Amino acid sequence: MLTNKGDLIMANNQVIKVGLMGLGTVGTGVLRILQENKEFIERKLGVGIEVKKILVRNLSKARKLDVNPELLTDNYLDIVNDPEIQICIELIGGINPTKQYVMEAIQAGKNIITANKDLIATEGKKIFEKSAEKQVDVRFEASVGGGIPIIRPLKVCLAANKIHEIMGIINGTTNYILTKMTTEGSNFSDVLKEAQDLGYAEADPTADVDGYDAARKLAILASIAFNSRVALKDVYTEGIAKITASDIGYATELGYVIKLLGIAKETNGQIEARVHPVFIPKAHPLASVHNAFNAIYIKGDAVGEAMFYGPGAGEMPTASAIMGDVVQVARNVVGGTTGFGICTCYEDKKVKPMGEIEAEYYIRLAVKDQPGVLASIAGVFGNQGVSIGSVIQKRHGGEMAEIVLITHQVKEQFIQDALKIVQGLSTVEIVSNVIRVEGGGQA
Amino acid sequence: MLTNKGDLIMANNQVIKVGLMGLGTVGTGVLRILQENKEFIERKLGVGIEVKKILVRNLSKARKLDVNPELLTDNYLDIVNDPEIQICIELIGGINPTKQYVMEAIQAGKNIITANKDLIATEGKKIFEKSAEKQVDVRFEASVGGGIPIIRPLKVCLAANKIHEIMGIINGTTNYILTKMTTEGSNFSDVLKEAQDLGYAEADPTADVDGYDAARKLAILASIAFNSRVALKDVYTEGIAKITASDIGYATELGYVIKLLGIAKETNGQIEARVHPVFIPKAHPLASVHNAFNAIYIKGDAVGEAMFYGPGAGEMPTASAIMGDVVQVARNVVGGTTGFGICTCYEDKKVKPMGEIEAEYYIRLAVKDQPGVLASIAGVFGNQGVSIGSVIQKRHGGEMAEIVLITHQVKEQFIQDALKIVQGLSTVEIVSNVIRVEGGGQA
Repeated sequence: MLTNKGDLIMANNQVIKVGLMGLGTVGTGVLRILQENKEFIERKLGVGIEVKKILVRNLSKARKLDVNPELLTDNYLDIVNDPEIQICIELIGGINPTKQYVMEAIQAGKNIITANKDLIATEGKKIFEKSAEKQVDVRFEASVGGGIPIIRPLKVCLAANKIHEIMGIINGTTNYILTKMTTEGSNFSDVLKEAQDLGYAEADPTADVDGYDAARKLAILASIAFNSRVALKDVYTEGIAKITASDIGYATELGYVIKLLGIAKETNGQIEARVHPVFIPKAHPLASVHNAFNAIYIKGDAVGEAMFYGPGAGEMPTASAIMGDVVQVARNVVGGTTGFGICTCYEDKKVKPMGEIEAEYYIRLAVKDQPGVLASIAGVFGNQGVSIGSVIQKRHGGEMAEIVLITHQVKEQFIQDALKIVQGLSTVEIVSNVIRVEGGGQA
Repeated sequence: MLTNKGDLIMANNQVIKVGLMGLGTVGTGVLRILQENKEFIERKLGVGIEVKKILVRNLSKARKLDVNPELLTDNYLDIVNDPEIQICIELIGGINPTKQYVMEAIQAGKNIITANKDLIATEGKKIFEKSAEKQVDVRFEASVGGGIPIIRPLKVCLAANKIHEIMGIINGTTNYILTKMTTEGSNFSDVLKEAQDLGYAEADPTADVDGYDAARKLAILASIAFNSRVALKDVYTEGIAKITASDIGYATELGYVIKLLGIAKETNGQIEARVHPVFIPKAHPLASVHNAFNAIYIKGDAVGEAMFYGPGAGEMPTASAIMGDVVQVARNVVGGTTGFGICTCYEDKKVKPMGEIEAEYYIRLAVKDQPGVLASIAGVFGNQGVSIGSVIQKRHGGEMAEIVLITHQVKEQFIQDALKIVQGLSTVEIVSNVIRVEGGGQA
């Protein structure tokens, strides 16, 4: 065995003490890893790792895992004020009172590891400023993509790249629902109910289904990728509740798959940040990401394309990401190099309004089945500078027909202007759906 | 902008000096990134990065990029003996004289960054021992998977996982050839010729086509994943030259894709390490990795499944990986923490002989078109403990037929024993091909 700094330190029996705030699903996973893999983690690391205190709401609640009851406390100050604790793992979630706990822990000189996307997406700036002041680490690998290593690879391995684009399947629930709708031809509401019964979707599915969960993760990814703070309010957000079996059918017919994507792009020094359903070509790497899996696809000027795939949630995958952060922070503690390079938002780039973005558009219209209807619609689009790529027209029985268009790349404002006029045509019953098309020109 | 250690150091105008050994494709890419993205890399890093000397074979050769001729030298000692140079990027390739240059650079206290898979796979142990002794970093992210971040995520982000299995498409040339064979139904030799004409395959394609390039990369990945040195000689290696259009056709018919995979598994404390063509199910994440792209699929006890996808070679992707290493090593230089955790092969696990591995097997046989042939063959397999899953029998015109079998999971030795007997049957003309089947039971 080689002699390295780690071994020397082990000889001194150095042990890094950890405080765990929260013992729900992920907290239990962290303890489980620390029990089952403790020996080889410590061997890799060269120091010991020991959980010294665990903050819980209910001291007497039965636990899934054997936990020494002496470790439990219901007072966060037992962690914040313990001078031996150098790493605080925050798994409470939410903003209040979590933000206060975290800020006090930083003030007390503790390094923070968290899976809390809400906290980082909305309060990241203040937390990072405080951590820079106190020279402690703040890590949040588990906040995006569950077990998938993405934040560290983006910050370090791809550090020399100008990142142009990120497209991510960063919400497992909606990907599960869209996968089932695609493979089974079922409707949104039926699949949602099934997903709720199976525990893949929450009783209140709003955060997932309406895209808010993905929006938080995208704000974090975009801030890192473009070195400029993208706040949650900067992210345009649209969910999947409007996607019908009919849209899925047309997507399949036209060679696409519908996914809920978080998309962040930088063009000419301006940022786009948006979460919405997307038609992507079947051959795109993201199109093969099924069920509850997540994947983040990146374009950089040097690497070209890269994609990171894995489980986007769950006890053990999320705990895997937390423990990866623990290993790194523990090394920094040993090396005396905590507090470096936490915030890289040293630029201040403008976020484009949605009217300014460019995409292709899938448009589905219910129209009267009369001669000249398609011509009049195409005429409106043409007058508004919207050029049309593909058209499908289908008789719907009775006097109705359905027209499906896919446009060429065009500014969103032109589409919105054209749709207002189209909606006013006497032959157009309703604009049934409009879905952006992305990922063209891929391998 | 936050104040952090980086900014403080920038105020001191610290500049890390780099020596570049080799100015071929990747070396040119490294210089290109350092020219185009210098400002923002330095801003992230907090210190300056400057290439001080470049080792070339021919001082007067015309270069694709503007290079200050004063930086060029044809004497490696100008880098090794320059006390200002702290990072040496080795892009010469091969073992001799590269190993000597690298060992002398380490002896002189320089940190090493290399893309050299031959060197790491065959001389890694000596290099790591020397670097531990001299407390310098040795990084080799670019040696596996080109631009894909894989070594660092495996070593750090997934550090808390027991890795059970790695399956990688880690050679772009063979993946390109197999993709073309699959989409166009062409024969191996035709596609190889086309790949050579397009520059995707070398004039002497042996290292790629026979699996040796992938074997080097797999040895590196397996050593990291299992914390035990897997030498190149430990890797069973078989190429793709025997794959025919007929095999590809049967794979498609049976719901599989043929890929050349590097496979490393740990079961009961023993390691498997092998590179060979594989049938994988169409729904497996690796099945959608097309053309020259690479991907590494990992199973760990906490993360479950993860996959890393991107360009496996090329000037800019490989330079991206080299520069990711530069950023990390430069931080360690600034923080005074070089030389930590380079070698993690602290265990000594046995590598299984091939007869001991278990897989499913695709077997294609040319047989006489007579009654009872299939029964006699199935009988032999049954007697040897090999149970058969799927069978296709096709008449081939004349008096010949073709039988294709896929077995259930079985020890390779049983297959080899059965095949010896089958080959001796008077009704069996030839065992046309045998290909292992992996990746069953995936999503």
